[in-house]
Amino acid sequence: MVGMSTASASFIAPDALLSHWQGHRRLTRRVIAAFPDDKLFTFSVGGMRTFGELSMELITMGAPMLRGLTTGQWDNVWDRSARPKQEVLRLWDEATPQIDALWKKMPAERFHETATAFGQYPGTVHDLVLYVIDNEIHHRGQGYVYLRALGIEPPPFYDRS
Amino acid sequence: MVGMSTASASFIAPDALLSHWQGHRRLTRRVIAAFPDDKLFTFSVGGMRTFGELSMELITMGAPMLRGLTTGQWDNVWDRSARPKQEVLRLWDEATPQIDALWKKMPAERFHETATAFGQYPGTVHDLVLYVIDNEIHHRGQGYVYLRALGIEPPPFYDRS
Repeated sequence: MVGMSTASASFIAPDALLSHWQGHRRLTRRVIAAFPDDKLFTFSVGGMRTFGELSMELITMGAPMLRGLTTGQWDNVWDRSARPKQEVLRLWDEATPQIDALWKKMPAERFHETATAFGQYPGTVHDLVLYVIDNEIHHRGQGYVYLRALGIEPPPFYDRS
Repeated sequence: MVGMSTASASFIAPDALLSHWQGHRRLTRRVIAAFPDDKLFTFSVGGMRTFGELSMELITMGAPMLRGLTTGQWDNVWDRSARPKQEVLRLWDEATPQIDALWKKMPAERFHETATAFGQYPGTVHDLVLYVIDNEIHHRGQGYVYLRALGIEPPPFYDRS
């Protein structure tokens, strides 16, 4: 620790965090896939949004956040409307290599700078990225309840393969 | 970036990750507090565990994980039984300074080493810590559904103050 300043100390490296996120994304994909097609945009509990709507939120936050942070171009118009499950999964899969490619463009120093996401959410870049991941975990946890309420066993939380 | 190896690159520093986690913990505390006392260990959706049981899981994972990672002493016997909400909140608050103190004992290199949590879960230390945080977000998201199903508005997800 001698000579290691707080600023240079690392809890986790960018590469490892990307792997962590893509592991979460593989699990979220399995949760989307577990929904019956006719329930994805129709079923919810307690008057909340459907898991289809939540999934479209996640899709319009992940790659668009990274794109904004790396290029300065922020998407602010999205279509989160109902669509067949296969189309949601296609959009999900389309984002996977986009996230990998955008991540590679991000210099490590960038994660410690500040930015204003989507023109309205200021924060340190690492916090903005974590917000996207945390929001995915949060809504996916809600999807687990919806699946249980439908009598469907969700995929195991610990499996990120 | 010249001369910066992948191993030394940092997505987030240990201090910032601790702040991030304690922010999540403040939100989770508000979710526990939002439950009526007589629902915390009795109400659930879809045959899942109650939010009281989930909260006790979080309490017996957070500080105990850090204690094990820093001292090598792993707690493996826990009492997660039903108790009054005020007692759950007391245990929650008791863990807050424990987590801060244990975190300060962790050398930054430690996060990149491997360990076997609770004698059975192997992983890189940063992944073991993230698992605890992610598990908290996951179950708290389920608590949001329970609250909505009870007709109670949950605290805002983005507020970590």
